[in-house]
Amino acid sequence: MLQGRSLIGYASGEPGEHGFHGHDPASGEALPPRYHRAAPAEVDRAARLAERAAPLYAALGGAVHGAFLRGIAERLEALADTLAALVPRETALAEARVRNELARTTGQLRLFAAQAEAGDWVDARLDRAEPQRLPQPRPAIASMLQPIGPVAVFGASNFPLAFSVAGGDTASALAAGCPVVVKAHPAHPATSELVGRAVVEAAEALELPEGVFSLLFDDGIGVGQALVRHPAIRAVGFTGSLRAGRALMDLAAARPEPIPVYAEMGSANPVVLLPQALAARSEAIADALAGSVALGNGQFCTRPGLAFALDGDGYRRLRDRLVERLAAVPAAAMLSAGIAAAFRDGTATRAARPGVQPLLAHTGAGRAVGPLLLETDAATLRADPALAHELFGPACLLVRCADKAELMAALQALDGQLTATLHAEPAELVDWPGLVPLLARKAGRVLFGGMPTGVEVGHAMVHGGPYPASADGRSTSVGAAALLRFARPVCYQGWPDELLPPALQAANPLVLWRLEDGERRR
Amino acid sequence: MLQGRSLIGYASGEPGEHGFHGHDPASGEALPPRYHRAAPAEVDRAARLAERAAPLYAALGGAVHGAFLRGIAERLEALADTLAALVPRETALAEARVRNELARTTGQLRLFAAQAEAGDWVDARLDRAEPQRLPQPRPAIASMLQPIGPVAVFGASNFPLAFSVAGGDTASALAAGCPVVVKAHPAHPATSELVGRAVVEAAEALELPEGVFSLLFDDGIGVGQALVRHPAIRAVGFTGSLRAGRALMDLAAARPEPIPVYAEMGSANPVVLLPQALAARSEAIADALAGSVALGNGQFCTRPGLAFALDGDGYRRLRDRLVERLAAVPAAAMLSAGIAAAFRDGTATRAARPGVQPLLAHTGAGRAVGPLLLETDAATLRADPALAHELFGPACLLVRCADKAELMAALQALDGQLTATLHAEPAELVDWPGLVPLLARKAGRVLFGGMPTGVEVGHAMVHGGPYPASADGRSTSVGAAALLRFARPVCYQGWPDELLPPALQAANPLVLWRLEDGERRR
Repeated sequence: MLQGRSLIGYASGEPGEHGFHGHDPASGEALPPRYHRAAPAEVDRAARLAERAAPLYAALGGAVHGAFLRGIAERLEALADTLAALVPRETALAEARVRNELARTTGQLRLFAAQAEAGDWVDARLDRAEPQRLPQPRPAIASMLQPIGPVAVFGASNFPLAFSVAGGDTASALAAGCPVVVKAHPAHPATSELVGRAVVEAAEALELPEGVFSLLFDDGIGVGQALVRHPAIRAVGFTGSLRAGRALMDLAAARPEPIPVYAEMGSANPVVLLPQALAARSEAIADALAGSVALGNGQFCTRPGLAFALDGDGYRRLRDRLVERLAAVPAAAMLSAGIAAAFRDGTATRAARPGVQPLLAHTGAGRAVGPLLLETDAATLRADPALAHELFGPACLLVRCADKAELMAALQALDGQLTATLHAEPAELVDWPGLVPLLARKAGRVLFGGMPTGVEVGHAMVHGGPYPASADGRSTSVGAAALLRFARPVCYQGWPDELLPPALQAANPLVLWRLEDGERRR
Repeated sequence: MLQGRSLIGYASGEPGEHGFHGHDPASGEALPPRYHRAAPAEVDRAARLAERAAPLYAALGGAVHGAFLRGIAERLEALADTLAALVPRETALAEARVRNELARTTGQLRLFAAQAEAGDWVDARLDRAEPQRLPQPRPAIASMLQPIGPVAVFGASNFPLAFSVAGGDTASALAAGCPVVVKAHPAHPATSELVGRAVVEAAEALELPEGVFSLLFDDGIGVGQALVRHPAIRAVGFTGSLRAGRALMDLAAARPEPIPVYAEMGSANPVVLLPQALAARSEAIADALAGSVALGNGQFCTRPGLAFALDGDGYRRLRDRLVERLAAVPAAAMLSAGIAAAFRDGTATRAARPGVQPLLAHTGAGRAVGPLLLETDAATLRADPALAHELFGPACLLVRCADKAELMAALQALDGQLTATLHAEPAELVDWPGLVPLLARKAGRVLFGGMPTGVEVGHAMVHGGPYPASADGRSTSVGAAALLRFARPVCYQGWPDELLPPALQAANPLVLWRLEDGERRR
């Protein structure tokens, strides 16, 4: 049933001159079908359909938005076996991982559906009129969040379901009432098409306005650039590399009318190991760290790529154990040949830097790579801050610090991070004043114990962080609050009650939690 | 007591080679003292002090932030008579207006103080641990908003108190726990210094960390540019022209680490007058519109600069009455000679455009100008969209539309606006499907009746709107939610309760409204 064409509203794109394929991870062979790059006119048509659909889809309200998301989730579940067979062929991900990721994807869709249905997210605020106020009466003023308009979403390579065509960005934008135009990631085109067809079917089943969803294929950057430049597009969701994300940020900022870009661009995810914690359990910490570095062959944006500790016996035990554990991890195929090549390049460059000791490096062959473990000291890192940048894959750099001041200075010098993890005995924290607030300034999520891989989808999750971890540290791309990215407040002044949106009517017909004259009420 | 120096933390800036003065509106004479442009090293020092103060000030918590804002409000009130004499000398604003604006300014400071003290704004979210969950236990996850860091604030010319040194941007940033470096507007330097000293005194009285506030003088753009480029600055608040605001947006987006810019850049504030409303009360509407256009000599960003109506008897009565009313408004001094000159230029340019009829233009002399009323038709506006751009001052363009389709198309073609105002009989709205949602897509605030001037400071106010009305239509620069601009979410995973910030502890010691497992509770 796969056709290799873009999905433009309720129609298929046309075949074009330029095409590309997914690739079998084992053989490297091109997989059928051939995928046709969306033509400029198709990009334009998808964006214009989205623009036309925007007010119609917004007006349908949260119950319909929720039903749409639930319809997508049900259709994806019905495709579970198909996806479990198809996704590994394109991505080299194991079937079990694919099934887990599918559950996460449908869970996300339903979390956002529940939010759309409940409606509290619109942050309804009512300031009552004061007709007797002097010198002038005060009019009734009420505000709520409303959808921002069509959103361009870029599928990520490393979550072919949960952060791709019907992933978190798409689900949160649709829940907020925004049409979505997805640019599929070229590393898993068949997965993208299959999921895209499920979304289209769910839209058709509810007779949603055409253009509420479109899916565009390209293995280059032209389609994505045209989309971000298109005047109909009002916001961008992206998960991927810093280079690509920054390019989209720059493009969006240079538009005649700049638009927000929510780009999640990865991070080195520092882990800080304090002496008493290492003294008490360096082996257990090493085991957890090795597991987190190697999980999914390191292809998570939360993979811990940096670990800081004071030199000493506990540190040396940790290091030895890490070498032992990671040495036992076999090389495995990466998501794409390009990602494997980039990892191998990064490995060679870093291992060759003065002051960096490779403790372990088995680079595999072809699309397969194995873990990389490096060690350096704080002075070397200070002199060469690029060592702290993310290397996407199963890599970790241990940073040996001579003393507390050196460790704190090294953390202070770090860029923004998605996560920062602290292993400590609570009692030793009094010796480290300022450490926890420093980690909270550097990262969107701060862990006490545990490891940063495994991002819970809930109400309190923050998956974001100061630049360059994300384009906009004021937002999260995972969890309930992700929906707030695609909305803007609108205030209604002096309106007769019956002409207000239901969320703002005096009788509160939607039974929302609201801020009434500054008081939280329902 | 005025010294003409910048205030760098708790010290005064040095005198420099370059200086400038405020100007008497009547005589055009330079007013003492001479103001010294902040040197590059002073800009750097202010930003670095702010960076150092940031974690210290943030850690003091909402009660101290509130006390600081209240201390500023009290000191400004003690200066009421001084300001009532001083501000008119620099700005040509009447004493009564200055006293009103002072009340608004202290009201804003106390609104934000109350928010900082109550603490609910941090949007605390707690997802409880599920130790029994399979396949893995779920850790406890809690998130809250935390201050974004040092904020650069640009004083506005048209609100020398309410949107200047201790205005809404400064108050909301300080309430969120962020240090502020203000670039004073050169049109009211003495007012800026006086208010700045009050802020410094309030900070000293509470022994706040030095650098929580600094004030920089410049009559050019160098200091502001250096500030926006400075790596210590994490966000920008600005009120002023589109040209200056966009320049700051571009500068911030081009930084190695881009930062958010909240620029409120004005708007034409369209007023839509439907036939039944005009039939019922065209004279009353004309009186209100004339009053709103002329209020403060049109120097409000919410001044209605565009009015749309269907041609006909009601429209003609409105037009005649408007001419009559505005003709009675005397020319008056503008906030600065530059603003008067820009208004006069804009008047000449617009009146000379083909298809535009000047109905009234008395341009005054020197710093004084009087109202401008122009008329055109929808086809002319469509051909020349620049006619719909803001002209800062007492100007209004009437757009005569032949029919409903022409009026709707004209609205559809408008840029983003701060406000849109509708005068209609509720019964006639059934004939105008899509009109209200269209206005809500174009503007941050939509009025039914009334006039857009007079921005209420409350919980539900939205003073913002899609670009180019503001840099970021997702935010408001007036009202309680303005504080949310200067915060970012941080998530704590797996922390022992006693190590969490009080806002996130299980016992809810701050008695906050929180989202606990997705339920709103206190």
